[in-house]
Amino acid sequence: MPTKKLNEDATGVYIIAATPFTDQGELDLESTDSLTDFYLEKGVTGFTILGMMGEAPKLTELETLTVMSRVLKRVNSRVPVVVGVSHASNQHVERLSKTAMEQGAAGVMLAPAANLKTDDQVYNYYATVMKVLGADIPVCLQDFPQATNVYTSVAVINRLIDDFPQVVMLKHEEMPGMRKLSEVRAGPEERRRRISILVGNGGLFLPQEMLRGADGAMTGFAYPEMLVQVCALCEQKKFDQAEDLFNLYLPLLRHEFQYGLGLALRKETLKRRGAIRYAFVRKPGPVLNATDHAELGRLIARLEKSLADAR
Amino acid sequence: MPTKKLNEDATGVYIIAATPFTDQGELDLESTDSLTDFYLEKGVTGFTILGMMGEAPKLTELETLTVMSRVLKRVNSRVPVVVGVSHASNQHVERLSKTAMEQGAAGVMLAPAANLKTDDQVYNYYATVMKVLGADIPVCLQDFPQATNVYTSVAVINRLIDDFPQVVMLKHEEMPGMRKLSEVRAGPEERRRRISILVGNGGLFLPQEMLRGADGAMTGFAYPEMLVQVCALCEQKKFDQAEDLFNLYLPLLRHEFQYGLGLALRKETLKRRGAIRYAFVRKPGPVLNATDHAELGRLIARLEKSLADAR
Amino acid sequence: MPTKKLNEDATGVYIIAATPFTDQGELDLESTDSLTDFYLEKGVTGFTILGMMGEAPKLTELETLTVMSRVLKRVNSRVPVVVGVSHASNQHVERLSKTAMEQGAAGVMLAPAANLKTDDQVYNYYATVMKVLGADIPVCLQDFPQATNVYTSVAVINRLIDDFPQVVMLKHEEMPGMRKLSEVRAGPEERRRRISILVGNGGLFLPQEMLRGADGAMTGFAYPEMLVQVCALCEQKKFDQAEDLFNLYLPLLRHEFQYGLGLALRKETLKRRGAIRYAFVRKPGPVLNATDHAELGRLIARLEKSLADAR
Amino acid sequence: MPTKKLNEDATGVYIIAATPFTDQGELDLESTDSLTDFYLEKGVTGFTILGMMGEAPKLTELETLTVMSRVLKRVNSRVPVVVGVSHASNQHVERLSKTAMEQGAAGVMLAPAANLKTDDQVYNYYATVMKVLGADIPVCLQDFPQATNVYTSVAVINRLIDDFPQVVMLKHEEMPGMRKLSEVRAGPEERRRRISILVGNGGLFLPQEMLRGADGAMTGFAYPEMLVQVCALCEQKKFDQAEDLFNLYLPLLRHEFQYGLGLALRKETLKRRGAIRYAFVRKPGPVLNATDHAELGRLIARLEKSLADAR
Repeated sequence: MPTKKLNEDATGVYIIAATPFTDQGELDLESTDSLTDFYLEKGVTGFTILGMMGEAPKLTELETLTVMSRVLKRVNSRVPVVVGVSHASNQHVERLSKTAMEQGAAGVMLAPAANLKTDDQVYNYYATVMKVLGADIPVCLQDFPQATNVYTSVAVINRLIDDFPQVVMLKHEEMPGMRKLSEVRAGPEERRRRISILVGNGGLFLPQEMLRGADGAMTGFAYPEMLVQVCALCEQKKFDQAEDLFNLYLPLLRHEFQYGLGLALRKETLKRRGAIRYAFVRKPGPVLNATDHAELGRLIARLEKSLADAR
Repeated sequence: MPTKKLNEDATGVYIIAATPFTDQGELDLESTDSLTDFYLEKGVTGFTILGMMGEAPKLTELETLTVMSRVLKRVNSRVPVVVGVSHASNQHVERLSKTAMEQGAAGVMLAPAANLKTDDQVYNYYATVMKVLGADIPVCLQDFPQATNVYTSVAVINRLIDDFPQVVMLKHEEMPGMRKLSEVRAGPEERRRRISILVGNGGLFLPQEMLRGADGAMTGFAYPEMLVQVCALCEQKKFDQAEDLFNLYLPLLRHEFQYGLGLALRKETLKRRGAIRYAFVRKPGPVLNATDHAELGRLIARLEKSLADAR
Repeated sequence: MPTKKLNEDATGVYIIAATPFTDQGELDLESTDSLTDFYLEKGVTGFTILGMMGEAPKLTELETLTVMSRVLKRVNSRVPVVVGVSHASNQHVERLSKTAMEQGAAGVMLAPAANLKTDDQVYNYYATVMKVLGADIPVCLQDFPQATNVYTSVAVINRLIDDFPQVVMLKHEEMPGMRKLSEVRAGPEERRRRISILVGNGGLFLPQEMLRGADGAMTGFAYPEMLVQVCALCEQKKFDQAEDLFNLYLPLLRHEFQYGLGLALRKETLKRRGAIRYAFVRKPGPVLNATDHAELGRLIARLEKSLADAR
Repeated sequence: MPTKKLNEDATGVYIIAATPFTDQGELDLESTDSLTDFYLEKGVTGFTILGMMGEAPKLTELETLTVMSRVLKRVNSRVPVVVGVSHASNQHVERLSKTAMEQGAAGVMLAPAANLKTDDQVYNYYATVMKVLGADIPVCLQDFPQATNVYTSVAVINRLIDDFPQVVMLKHEEMPGMRKLSEVRAGPEERRRRISILVGNGGLFLPQEMLRGADGAMTGFAYPEMLVQVCALCEQKKFDQAEDLFNLYLPLLRHEFQYGLGLALRKETLKRRGAIRYAFVRKPGPVLNATDHAELGRLIARLEKSLADAR
């Protein structure tokens, strides 16, 4: 089945997929499969693999290609898969993007290179890469200044939308950034092409962002079924119902939101839910101690009780 | 009535007090009084004035002294008042600290100077100031690297506790930082003096932090009564009950947590609650637009409904 | 004698004046006078007082006003004096700027507030302040991202030049930044108003920058007579002669260029030259040890020998 | 011929080798050979390949291995080759280090991972990797906070020297950092093992640093013969003669020192000297324009004239 390419109509949950390792730090492809199945069962609309939370910078190129082809094969075009291709070298971005598309990716996600400061610098970086990739590769702009230290202004995003039809999606993750989301969303009012906006930051502000016009979430919270339901309810304009559901998970979601440590908490939760075999994070990286484990367990237990009470 | 000095036994809620301005940007001393009353009515254990959220860097020295004496007079020694004294010059820190103590402050709060990098640099900064201030002025260490870009290690905190008896409190605000909190808390197990640890970050992790041994909160959430109740319940070891209450407020608390914008949201909420007359934040600073106002209003309405439902 | 206001024709050396203290850290007004005389004797075209290297953030408002009026009185309108007015609060910028102009300043220098990221944010900050100050107060934009962490793009500088006639000067200090200098300089080719560009960074690239069209230097190297002569020679298009002279001082200039420590080296050199009585830098701040003193002494001795040899 | 391993006695110039590309951005192995020969002819004591200025983060793993084996083969054990192995994943550091040593490297150079803040964090990072690599792989600590944003204190360096015999060299590049150099150098006075200290920052303070006890330089200035002579003269205690020579090159060295742009200037200079065929820097990266070329040409011409005059 040929894969449908990513476009501006994308909605719902593009799950930021974790990359499973064994406790020895090697790729755990068995868990890659089971995690892929887990995400599909929970109803995700799409995947985003090899992002920062997928520990992409800690993979060799061979490992990158292995994970990519494994997930693409397992998903088997049932839902679109976006591949993270950010890299210090444009040549690598190009090679990885083309390989991904050849293997059935729906599009690529690209964060700006390091050390870009002014609007023109950010625009020129993206414009250069867009020209290298060509109009046939759909691109999701990853706007995550907390990690990249690069700030992409609304003006730059709009210029990119106007100049490059392949820019079809924004992963919105600046924080605070809700006004920015509203400003990008207002673009079509000025006859600008309307692109898909999916939100990150672990979904911490998902209900507010959906109300402001986001099309869904691109994040990796270990209970993707909640994200899926919240997005579906919002699509039906049931915003209060969506937020009621969201709030049940908010204590745990906020806990997982802790930058850095969050990845270890997320993998541990996925392991407890049976989605992966090991919670290993590549070193240097966070390791949970006994207190962390107990704290997480308590929050999960409280969530389960809340869910039971809510039924 | 002579003021009791701050010591290691401090617990509960030391409210980070906002500094009210008129809509023309001048000090609003009438609101300073009403806000002080508001906090006292809500049951706070103490005050922390002239911190970063108190817009201290935007005050002239005269305004600083005016706010300080006004609050101290209004509180009238009913609860301890900690005064923020962070400044680029040690001479200013000294002068402001001594003035504060003379006027009845219980202690001072001090963040590290900018550009400190290594453990020795941070320690030496604090050690120098401690010697200048002398052992009679109780000090709360403000550990807020997200704003200062200075990281104070557990090792440095412990050295300061060991070397300077006036170090009686830590405002814990590194994030993620719960393991750090646990490590500082474990100090007394190694026969180290036990100091008070109050947590910041808007209280985002307050229940978890109380479980890890925090003594209370030092933050400015616009519903201080919740912080007060949560701390009281935790003191009674009713952690689940505390967390249930906390979670009712968590959606709004998370909203106010937005760094930068949060101050405008907090002041607007305090205004809506009748605690201050104007929500003005000094420029350059955040200004709420119509969408922000509607969003905040909706979250407040949802909170009120939750509270009503919970009764 | 009424002071001539700063305008776009400014050239030569606007010395970044140090603020002298006694060894107890108090203002040393006697040295303020002698330093002012020293700079005038060395032939500077203008002064810039109360900048970062003038330790402005470590002064109280009263001290700020004292230094300002002392220097303005001593200079007595013989050359223009630019006053640094950067502050976290726009109200303070306004008040200080107006006081400075009333007392005879030729203009003010303004760095952007902290935490500005995108082009629009930087432009809007400046635009807001320009409107507050009004068109009658000439402004020098201080572009020093190494200290402020704010990047002002050429596009923003050009917008400010186009929108605000009071923007008459750029203190160019981004590094590397020579291409930026050339780009700003090229503005008049596009029929944009030509403003004065004076360079900072201790003058490390002064000959190159003059060749690229800078109008002079705004820096505080402890041998201002060299800066004066280099600028004069460049004005006469004697670029090689200018650079030959510059290179004699380059080893010492490079030494003083060390960010942070440089201020202590500069004050010590000014003291050795008899311009000030004490080399004290307010704390926290750098202190020279015996090795530093010997190293500086050796470089000064080598410079003096070079100068003697060159005669 | 078996390669001698790097040890504490290393002195002289370990040239930071550029990685040559064709103008299409592919590895230029012919130029890799000619550049290797060029460095050897100029008398370098050793090589450091695949550092930041070697554009290592922009190479694929295959390219990394290709460059490494090409240089090692060409050098053929005539001088020691240190291989940069910094990477986001410890597993990669281990694999690359072991491969390098198997192929004849003399040791490896390692910068700290990103986001390390406190002394313990930096120490623990290095300690973990040291244990993974084992005592048989000599390590040069790369201390370059301007690029890594990680500050390695003297206390941490000393702990690493004390705990790990394989730590035999420090690439000293913090700036300002001369006092730090002196403090590390003073270690043996406290009966601490004396390691080799080579200085970076383009050699901007080389004469001062040699006087403070540095053992040589590890930098990539395009006139390595000057670095070699300066180090040799300093070894003979002819410090003034060394500095006289150094100062002839200082204008150009300072020009090449420009962070970011400097790599393009360095490659262009190496091309003009016939050491490589193309000056290409991988994208995103700096590109010289006509003004930059003319400016560089003028500085080179002035250097050549100075050298002729000095003869």
